[in-house]
Amino acid sequence: MVRLNEIRPGETSVPLPAGTDAGLYFIGTIRTPWTDRLKCPRQGRADGPTCRLELSAPWNQGLDHITEFARLEVLYWLHESRRDLTLQSPRRDGNARGVFSLRTPARPNPIGTSIVHLVRVEGPVVFVRGLDCLDGTPLLDLKPDRELFTPLAAAQEGDHQVGDPS
Amino acid sequence: MVRLNEIRPGETSVPLPAGTDAGLYFIGTIRTPWTDRLKCPRQGRADGPTCRLELSAPWNQGLDHITEFARLEVLYWLHESRRDLTLQSPRRDGNARGVFSLRTPARPNPIGTSIVHLVRVEGPVVFVRGLDCLDGTPLLDLKPDRELFTPLAAAQEGDHQVGDPS
Repeated sequence: MVRLNEIRPGETSVPLPAGTDAGLYFIGTIRTPWTDRLKCPRQGRADGPTCRLELSAPWNQGLDHITEFARLEVLYWLHESRRDLTLQSPRRDGNARGVFSLRTPARPNPIGTSIVHLVRVEGPVVFVRGLDCLDGTPLLDLKPDRELFTPLAAAQEGDHQVGDPS
Repeated sequence: MVRLNEIRPGETSVPLPAGTDAGLYFIGTIRTPWTDRLKCPRQGRADGPTCRLELSAPWNQGLDHITEFARLEVLYWLHESRRDLTLQSPRRDGNARGVFSLRTPARPNPIGTSIVHLVRVEGPVVFVRGLDCLDGTPLLDLKPDRELFTPLAAAQEGDHQVGDPS
Protein backbone atom coordinates (compact mmCIF):
# COMPACT_ATOMS: atom_id res chain seq x y z
CA MET A 1 0.00 0.00 0.00
CA VAL A 2 1.23 3.49 -0.67
CA ARG A 3 1.61 5.90 2.16
CA LEU A 4 -1.07 8.15 3.47
CA ASN A 5 0.42 10.15 6.31
CA GLU A 6 1.61 7.46 8.68
CA ILE A 7 5.14 6.95 9.97
CA ARG A 8 6.01 3.27 9.75
CA PRO A 9 8.26 1.11 11.91
CA GLY A 10 11.92 1.71 11.02
CA GLU A 11 11.34 5.10 9.41
CA THR A 12 13.14 8.31 10.40
CA SER A 13 11.48 11.71 10.43
CA VAL A 14 13.39 14.97 10.82
CA PRO A 15 12.22 18.41 11.96
CA LEU A 16 11.43 20.55 8.94
CA PRO A 17 13.27 23.87 8.55
CA ALA A 18 11.47 26.94 9.96
CA GLY A 19 11.18 28.56 6.53
CA THR A 20 11.44 27.74 2.85
CA ASP A 21 14.15 28.94 0.47
CA ALA A 22 12.24 29.56 -2.77
CA GLY A 23 8.63 29.72 -3.93
CA LEU A 24 6.66 27.97 -6.65
CA TYR A 25 3.79 29.20 -8.78
CA PHE A 26 1.09 26.70 -9.60
CA ILE A 27 0.65 27.19 -13.37
CA GLY A 28 -2.39 24.96 -13.75
CA THR A 29 -4.15 21.82 -12.57
CA ILE A 30 -3.82 18.19 -13.63
CA ARG A 31 -6.98 16.16 -14.20
CA THR A 32 -6.69 12.38 -13.87
CA PRO A 33 -9.08 9.49 -13.12
CA TRP A 34 -7.58 9.00 -9.64
CA THR A 35 -9.13 10.64 -6.60
CA ASP A 36 -7.69 8.29 -3.98
CA ARG A 37 -3.99 7.89 -3.21
CA LEU A 38 -4.59 4.22 -2.52
CA LYS A 39 -5.70 3.64 -6.12
CA CYS A 40 -3.20 5.80 -8.05
CA PRO A 41 -0.68 3.99 -10.21
CA ARG A 42 2.73 3.75 -8.59
CA GLN A 43 4.21 4.82 -11.95
CA GLY A 44 2.64 6.15 -15.14
CA ARG A 45 2.39 3.96 -18.24
CA ALA A 46 2.43 5.02 -21.88
CA ASP A 47 -0.84 3.17 -22.55
CA GLY A 48 -2.56 4.62 -19.48
CA PRO A 49 -5.68 6.80 -19.55
CA THR A 50 -5.61 10.21 -21.19
CA CYS A 51 -5.21 12.94 -18.58
CA ARG A 52 -5.46 16.72 -18.90
CA LEU A 53 -3.00 19.47 -18.05
CA GLU A 54 -5.16 22.57 -17.66
CA LEU A 55 -2.96 25.65 -17.88
CA SER A 56 -3.97 28.86 -16.13
CA ALA A 57 -3.64 32.27 -17.79
CA PRO A 58 -1.25 33.81 -18.58
CA TRP A 59 0.95 30.70 -18.52
CA ASN A 60 -1.03 29.05 -21.32
CA GLN A 61 0.76 31.45 -23.70
CA GLY A 62 3.81 29.25 -23.17
CA LEU A 63 2.17 26.29 -24.97
CA ASP A 64 2.98 27.82 -28.36
CA HIS A 65 4.90 25.27 -30.54
CA ILE A 66 4.52 22.48 -27.97
CA THR A 67 2.88 20.16 -30.52
CA GLU A 68 6.28 19.70 -32.16
CA PHE A 69 7.11 17.18 -29.44
CA ALA A 70 5.64 13.69 -29.14
CA ARG A 71 6.83 13.34 -25.55
CA LEU A 72 6.94 15.88 -22.75
CA GLU A 73 8.47 15.99 -19.30
CA VAL A 74 5.87 17.10 -16.75
CA LEU A 75 6.63 18.42 -13.27
CA TYR A 76 3.94 18.61 -10.59
CA TRP A 77 3.53 19.26 -6.90
CA LEU A 78 2.62 16.22 -4.83
CA HIS A 79 0.52 18.35 -2.56
CA GLU A 80 -0.64 15.65 -0.13
CA SER A 81 2.79 14.24 0.68
CA ARG A 82 4.66 14.61 3.94
CA ARG A 83 8.19 15.95 3.58
CA ASP A 84 10.04 14.87 6.71
CA LEU A 85 10.89 11.19 6.17
CA THR A 86 14.58 10.70 5.36
CA LEU A 87 14.39 6.91 5.78
CA GLN A 88 11.31 5.10 4.53
CA SER A 89 9.92 1.58 4.54
CA PRO A 90 8.00 1.11 1.29
CA ARG A 91 7.07 -2.47 2.13
CA ARG A 92 6.01 -1.69 5.72
CA ASP A 93 8.27 -4.48 6.90
CA GLY A 94 10.55 -2.55 9.24
CA ASN A 95 13.31 -2.31 6.61
CA ALA A 96 13.97 1.33 5.77
CA ARG A 97 16.10 2.98 3.10
CA GLY A 98 16.98 6.52 2.11
CA VAL A 99 14.34 8.67 0.44
CA PHE A 100 16.75 9.48 -2.43
CA SER A 101 16.98 5.78 -3.32
CA LEU A 102 13.19 5.75 -3.83
CA ARG A 103 10.74 7.50 -6.14
CA THR A 104 8.24 7.88 -3.28
CA PRO A 105 6.04 11.01 -3.34
CA ALA A 106 7.04 11.69 0.28
CA ARG A 107 10.24 13.74 -0.17
CA PRO A 108 11.73 16.98 1.16
CA ASN A 109 10.55 18.68 -2.03
CA PRO A 110 7.60 16.63 -3.27
CA ILE A 111 8.02 17.26 -6.99
CA GLY A 112 6.81 14.50 -9.29
CA THR A 113 8.28 14.09 -12.76
CA SER A 114 6.81 12.03 -15.57
CA ILE A 115 7.55 11.48 -19.24
CA VAL A 116 4.19 11.62 -21.03
CA HIS A 117 2.97 11.12 -24.57
CA LEU A 118 1.27 14.14 -26.11
CA VAL A 119 -2.19 13.31 -27.43
CA ARG A 120 -3.44 16.77 -28.46
CA VAL A 121 -3.77 20.38 -27.38
CA GLU A 122 -7.09 22.27 -27.18
CA GLY A 123 -6.56 25.89 -26.20
CA PRO A 124 -5.07 25.94 -22.70
CA VAL A 125 -5.52 22.18 -22.19
CA VAL A 126 -2.88 19.57 -23.02
CA PHE A 127 -4.07 15.96 -23.27
CA VAL A 128 -1.41 13.40 -22.36
CA ARG A 129 -0.89 9.75 -21.42
CA GLY A 130 1.58 8.43 -18.86
CA LEU A 131 0.69 10.23 -15.63
CA ASP A 132 0.38 8.67 -12.19
CA CYS A 133 -0.85 11.52 -10.00
CA LEU A 134 -4.05 12.42 -8.16
CA ASP A 135 -6.81 14.41 -9.78
CA GLY A 136 -6.32 18.06 -8.83
CA THR A 137 -2.53 17.89 -8.58
CA PRO A 138 -0.96 21.34 -9.11
CA LEU A 139 1.08 21.66 -12.32
CA LEU A 140 4.58 23.17 -12.09
CA ASP A 141 6.15 22.84 -15.51
CA LEU A 142 6.22 21.02 -18.82
CA LYS A 143 9.10 20.80 -21.26
CA PRO A 144 10.13 18.74 -24.26
CA ASP A 145 11.50 15.29 -23.40
CA ARG A 146 15.27 15.75 -23.23
CA GLU A 147 15.77 13.02 -25.82
CA LEU A 148 13.70 14.91 -28.40
CA PHE A 149 15.08 18.39 -27.81
CA THR A 150 18.04 20.09 -29.46
CA PRO A 151 18.94 23.49 -28.04
CA LEU A 152 18.18 26.39 -30.36
CA ALA A 153 20.51 28.85 -28.67
CA ALA A 154 24.06 29.17 -30.01
CA ALA A 155 26.68 26.73 -28.71
CA GLN A 156 28.64 27.58 -25.58
CA GLU A 157 32.11 26.71 -24.35
CA GLY A 158 30.81 24.20 -21.76
CA ASP A 159 29.00 22.17 -24.44
CA HIS A 160 32.30 20.65 -25.48
CA GLN A 161 33.79 20.06 -22.05
CA VAL A 162 34.50 16.39 -21.28
CA GLY A 163 36.41 14.52 -18.59
CA ASP A 164 37.69 16.31 -15.52
CA PRO A 165 39.42 19.68 -15.31
CA SER A 166 43.01 19.35 -14.06
CA MET B 1 24.35 32.99 -26.47
CA VAL B 2 22.25 31.95 -23.50
CA ARG B 3 20.19 34.51 -21.71
CA LEU B 4 21.40 36.66 -18.91
CA ASN B 5 18.48 38.83 -17.83
CA GLU B 6 17.57 40.63 -21.04
CA ILE B 7 14.21 40.64 -22.80
CA ARG B 8 14.79 40.12 -26.52
CA PRO B 9 12.84 41.35 -29.54
CA GLY B 10 9.68 39.28 -30.04
CA GLU B 11 9.55 37.99 -26.48
CA THR B 12 6.54 38.31 -24.15
CA SER B 13 6.83 38.93 -20.43
CA VAL B 14 3.90 38.67 -18.03
CA PRO B 15 3.38 40.15 -14.55
CA LEU B 16 4.32 37.60 -11.91
CA PRO B 17 1.68 36.62 -9.31
CA ALA B 18 1.77 38.57 -6.05
CA GLY B 19 2.55 35.47 -4.02
CA THR B 20 3.79 31.92 -4.41
CA ASP B 21 1.75 28.76 -3.86
CA ALA B 22 4.26 26.38 -2.28
CA GLY B 23 7.76 26.53 -0.83
CA LEU B 24 10.97 24.64 -1.50
CA TYR B 25 13.77 23.62 0.84
CA PHE B 26 17.28 23.76 -0.57
CA ILE B 27 18.70 20.39 0.50
CA GLY B 28 22.27 21.04 -0.58
CA THR B 29 24.53 22.74 -3.10
CA ILE B 30 25.82 21.61 -6.49
CA ARG B 31 29.48 22.15 -7.32
CA THR B 32 30.41 22.32 -11.01
CA PRO B 33 33.28 23.83 -13.04
CA TRP B 34 31.02 26.58 -14.42
CA THR B 35 30.85 29.98 -12.75
CA ASP B 36 29.55 31.93 -15.75
CA ARG B 37 26.17 31.39 -17.38
CA LEU B 38 27.72 32.22 -20.75
CA LYS B 39 30.07 29.21 -20.50
CA CYS B 40 27.73 26.56 -19.01
CA PRO B 41 26.81 23.63 -21.24
CA ARG B 42 23.36 23.98 -22.77
CA GLN B 43 22.75 20.34 -21.82
CA GLY B 44 24.73 17.90 -19.68
CA ARG B 45 26.67 15.05 -21.26
CA ALA B 46 27.44 11.63 -19.84
CA ASP B 47 31.18 12.10 -20.44
CA GLY B 48 31.23 15.59 -18.93
CA PRO B 49 33.25 16.59 -15.87
CA THR B 50 32.55 15.06 -12.48
CA CYS B 51 30.41 17.39 -10.36
CA ARG B 52 29.45 17.22 -6.70
CA LEU B 53 26.07 17.19 -5.01
CA GLU B 54 26.80 18.31 -1.45
CA LEU B 55 23.86 17.37 0.77
CA SER B 56 23.10 19.37 3.90
CA ALA B 57 22.17 17.76 7.22
CA PRO B 58 19.77 16.18 7.98
CA TRP B 59 18.88 15.47 4.34
CA ASN B 60 22.10 13.51 3.77
CA GLN B 61 20.45 10.67 5.75
CA GLY B 62 18.34 10.12 2.63
CA LEU B 63 21.38 8.95 0.62
CA ASP B 64 21.22 5.50 2.21
CA HIS B 65 21.10 2.78 -0.52
CA ILE B 66 21.58 5.30 -3.35
CA THR B 67 24.62 3.46 -4.69
CA GLU B 68 22.30 0.76 -6.01
CA PHE B 69 21.56 3.00 -8.98
CA ALA B 70 23.96 3.76 -11.82
CA ARG B 71 21.90 6.73 -12.97
CA LEU B 72 20.01 9.34 -10.98
CA GLU B 73 17.52 12.05 -11.79
CA VAL B 74 18.63 15.35 -10.23
CA LEU B 75 16.38 18.37 -9.66
CA TYR B 76 17.85 21.80 -8.94
CA TRP B 77 16.80 25.41 -8.65
CA LEU B 78 18.00 27.64 -11.49
CA HIS B 79 18.40 30.53 -9.09
CA GLU B 80 19.57 33.18 -11.55
CA SER B 81 16.75 32.76 -14.07
CA ARG B 82 13.94 35.19 -14.72
CA ARG B 83 10.47 33.65 -14.53
CA ASP B 84 8.21 35.95 -16.53
CA LEU B 85 8.90 35.12 -20.20
CA THR B 86 6.07 33.10 -21.74
CA LEU B 87 7.40 33.54 -25.30
CA GLN B 88 11.14 33.40 -25.86
CA SER B 89 13.58 33.86 -28.70
CA PRO B 90 16.47 31.46 -28.13
CA ARG B 91 18.26 32.54 -31.31
CA ARG B 92 17.78 36.29 -30.66
CA ASP B 93 16.37 36.61 -34.16
CA GLY B 94 12.93 38.03 -33.35
CA ASN B 95 11.24 34.63 -33.70
CA ALA B 96 9.69 33.63 -30.40
CA ARG B 97 8.09 30.41 -29.20
CA GLY B 98 6.42 29.20 -26.03
CA VAL B 99 8.53 28.55 -22.98
CA PHE B 100 7.06 25.03 -22.62
CA SER B 101 8.40 24.09 -26.05
CA LEU B 102 11.92 24.90 -24.82
CA ARG B 103 14.22 23.59 -22.10
CA THR B 104 15.40 27.12 -21.30
CA PRO B 105 16.29 27.85 -17.65
CA ALA B 106 13.99 30.91 -17.77
CA ARG B 107 10.62 29.41 -16.81
CA PRO B 108 7.76 30.16 -14.41
CA ASN B 109 9.25 27.58 -12.04
CA PRO B 110 12.95 27.41 -12.87
CA ILE B 111 13.55 23.79 -11.96
CA GLY B 112 16.30 22.03 -13.88
CA THR B 113 16.25 18.26 -14.32
CA SER B 114 19.16 16.10 -15.44
CA ILE B 115 19.86 12.40 -15.73
CA VAL B 116 23.36 11.86 -14.31
CA HIS B 117 25.74 8.97 -13.95
CA LEU B 118 26.70 8.12 -10.38
CA VAL B 119 30.47 8.06 -9.90
CA ARG B 120 30.72 7.55 -6.12
CA VAL B 121 29.42 8.69 -2.76
CA GLU B 122 31.65 10.03 0.04
CA GLY B 123 29.64 10.79 3.17
CA PRO B 124 27.17 13.57 2.31
CA VAL B 125 28.69 14.18 -1.15
CA VAL B 126 27.51 12.46 -4.34
CA PHE B 127 29.89 12.62 -7.32
CA VAL B 128 28.12 12.54 -10.69
CA ARG B 129 28.61 13.22 -14.39
CA GLY B 130 26.06 14.77 -16.73
CA LEU B 131 25.20 18.12 -15.17
CA ASP B 132 24.90 21.45 -16.95
CA CYS B 133 24.32 23.95 -14.15
CA LEU B 134 26.24 26.77 -12.52
CA ASP B 135 28.52 26.23 -9.55
CA GLY B 136 26.53 26.98 -6.40
CA THR B 137 23.16 25.91 -7.80
CA PRO B 138 20.77 24.88 -5.00
CA LEU B 139 19.89 21.17 -4.95
CA LEU B 140 16.20 20.21 -4.67
CA ASP B 141 16.02 16.45 -5.07
CA LEU B 142 17.63 13.32 -6.40
CA LYS B 143 15.95 10.04 -7.21
CA PRO B 144 16.71 6.84 -9.12
CA ASP B 145 16.41 7.15 -12.90
CA ARG B 146 12.86 6.04 -13.69
CA GLU B 147 14.19 3.41 -16.10
CA LEU B 148 16.20 1.70 -13.36
CA PHE B 149 13.58 1.82 -10.61
CA THR B 150 10.92 -0.74 -9.74
CA PRO B 151 8.50 0.31 -7.01
CA LEU B 152 8.93 -1.60 -3.74
CA ALA B 153 5.48 -0.78 -2.40
CA ALA B 154 2.67 -3.25 -3.07
CA ALA B 155 0.77 -2.93 -6.36
CA GLN B 156 -2.27 -0.66 -6.58
CA GLU B 157 -5.41 -0.71 -8.66
CA GLY B 158 -4.25 2.15 -10.92
CA ASP B 159 -1.09 0.25 -11.89
CA HIS B 160 -3.16 -1.87 -14.25
CA GLN B 161 -5.37 0.84 -15.73
CA VAL B 162 -4.99 1.30 -19.49
CA GLY B 163 -6.92 3.14 -22.18
CA ASP B 164 -9.60 5.63 -21.29
CA PRO B 165 -12.36 5.32 -18.71
CA SER B 166 -15.82 5.32 -20.29
